Amino acid sequence: MTSDPSASIPGFARTPEPPYYAVIFTSTRTGIDEGYQAVAERMVLLASQQPGFLGVESTRGGEGLGITVSYWTSLEAIAAWKAQGEHRLAQASGHGKWYQHFETRIARVERAYGGPNRG
Amino acid sequence: MTSDPSASIPGFARTPEPPYYAVIFTSTRTGIDEGYQAVAERMVLLASQQPGFLGVESTRGGEGLGITVSYWTSLEAIAAWKAQGEHRLAQASGHGKWYQHFETRIARVERAYGGPNRG
Repeated sequence: MTSDPSASIPGFARTPEPPYYAVIFTSTRTGIDEGYQAVAERMVLLASQQPGFLGVESTRGGEGLGITVSYWTSLEAIAAWKAQGEHRLAQASGHGKWYQHFETRIARVERAYGGPNRG
Repeated sequence: MTSDPSASIPGFARTPEPPYYAVIFTSTRTGIDEGYQAVAERMVLLASQQPGFLGVESTRGGEGLGITVSYWTSLEAIAAWKAQGEHRLAQASGHGKWYQHFETRIARVERAYGGPNRG
C-alpha cells in the first residue's frame, strides 16, 4: 500500500525541503480566558494569509504547556508577520494577560524527515 | 518585584544565548501504549545525560498531537544522540508501534526572546 506523499496529515504542517524557518513559541497560560480562543484562531487565520507562511503545528497539554511552531520561507516573512498590525495589537494586549510565561525562538530548519507515512 | 532571570520555569528549557540547535519532533500516537510512557521518560533521562544537551520542552494535547523540542549545543551533539545505542533501539522498535506519524526537523536557533518574566 503506497501513500500519497503530497497528501496533508491533520495536525502536521506540509513543509517543503529545507532550508526554511521555524518560529517556536512555547507558553503557559494564565487563568484569564477573555477573548483568548477567538484571538488565537484569528491569528492562525491571519498568519496563513501572510506571504511566506508554510504551515503551523500547535498543541497544548493538560498540564498547561503549549507549543506552537509556525513555518516560514524566510526571516523577512517572519519579520513582516511580527510587524503585521492586528498581530502586533494582539501581542501588545494579549501577552501580559493570557500568557504567564512564553519563549519565542526563531530557527532555520536545516534537515527534516518523517515517517512512517513517508521516508 | 524582580524575578531571577537564571531561575528555571517549569516546562521551559533554560537555553543560552543563540546560536544553538533544536530538534522539533511532532507526532501523533497510535492507540498502542505498551511500554510507551516508561520508554519516553527513559529517553528524556538519557538525552539529558548526553554531551551538548541544553533542555527539552514537550507537550501533547487532547487531540493527540505531540510536540517535543529538545535543544542542543551543536549538530554533532544531535548526531551523537541519534546514534546512542538505547535511543536507536527505541527508535527502531517504537516508531512504528507507538507513532501513527511523526516529523523530525533539525534547526539552528538564531534568535530567542521571552516574557513577561524576562525581556
